[in-house]
Amino acid sequence: MRERLEKQAAFLLEVDKMKRICRQTHILGRERAENDAEHSWHLALMAFLLPEYANGQVDVCRVMKMVLVHDLVEIDAGDTYAYDEAANVSKRERELKAAERIFGLLPKDQARELWELWEEFEEYETPEAEFAHVLDNFQPLMLNHANGGGDWKDHGVRRSQIYKRNAKTGEGSREIWEYMAELIDRNIEAGNIAEG
Amino acid sequence: MRERLEKQAAFLLEVDKMKRICRQTHILGRERAENDAEHSWHLALMAFLLPEYANGQVDVCRVMKMVLVHDLVEIDAGDTYAYDEAANVSKRERELKAAERIFGLLPKDQARELWELWEEFEEYETPEAEFAHVLDNFQPLMLNHANGGGDWKDHGVRRSQIYKRNAKTGEGSREIWEYMAELIDRNIEAGNIAEG
Repeated sequence: MRERLEKQAAFLLEVDKMKRICRQTHILGRERAENDAEHSWHLALMAFLLPEYANGQVDVCRVMKMVLVHDLVEIDAGDTYAYDEAANVSKRERELKAAERIFGLLPKDQARELWELWEEFEEYETPEAEFAHVLDNFQPLMLNHANGGGDWKDHGVRRSQIYKRNAKTGEGSREIWEYMAELIDRNIEAGNIAEG
Repeated sequence: MRERLEKQAAFLLEVDKMKRICRQTHILGRERAENDAEHSWHLALMAFLLPEYANGQVDVCRVMKMVLVHDLVEIDAGDTYAYDEAANVSKRERELKAAERIFGLLPKDQARELWELWEEFEEYETPEAEFAHVLDNFQPLMLNHANGGGDWKDHGVRRSQIYKRNAKTGEGSREIWEYMAELIDRNIEAGNIAEG
């Protein structure tokens, strides 16, 4: 029992590094980048509060677990910006190695459980994975809109890039995607997102 | 539906402030204070991975929800250091006002749900609340131990203060409390925590 708890504690200390991994998104007020731990907390809270908007029936507990762990691989693989096409080519390979090392710190049964949750998220097929992706796309959009769209402007992001990334968002949640599409339109009008 | 979603989005933006509320605990490596969003993420992950150590049967999903929201009141009331006795006197009143304002941003049914979760945590009676408190005490102890005990040294913390705060931790989890007591002993030996 003690050996098991010590393994779990070692894992919990290792993943503290999530607090140092900066995303491209900024916290509200835009004074600094958001980190992966903060992002994951925000998504878990959204999984708790917004499941009524999922198109399918979702297991809220599973969505919460999924978003709590979905970015852990970034401890080794780093945050890959959604609109950096070159970095996204090598992303899968880097993340597989990371998953093996990081989840492998846990007792075997839990390493497998985390691996399955992460793979389910990546495969993007179950209602839970679809809804987790809705949240993972909605949260930075909501923040970026509230921050005056600066992250889009800085990266010269175009409507087609956002639509490509969100190709399946409407399948996860029609209502949330409609709301997101409105926010995108408003940011195009404001000149924060480029047309085309 | 849209009005409801906009209320929820306004709440989700308001609670972004959790990312600015500094705790006394430091992140691993001790280069800066941990904030409430990071702390809450860490606790939710612990709720996911450690429920096998709860003395009672716990609803993991409820514990996760509880720890995700347990510190939201600090957006208005601030973080009250566990060993600051003066500040702890006015804590309850400050936090009640905060809960009313912050949870009140949500649609009524969800405002009530968050209020109930927070009150359950504060009342410290259900197996879920007991286990959430175990995690809320174990996480900073684990971090502080890994950081060489600096937070205890800086505040001149004594064994009796930690034991007082953890008076009910063993009721929530015998195994985790035994492990914590060992870590406390090691930090007394190392001179990081004062005897008495």
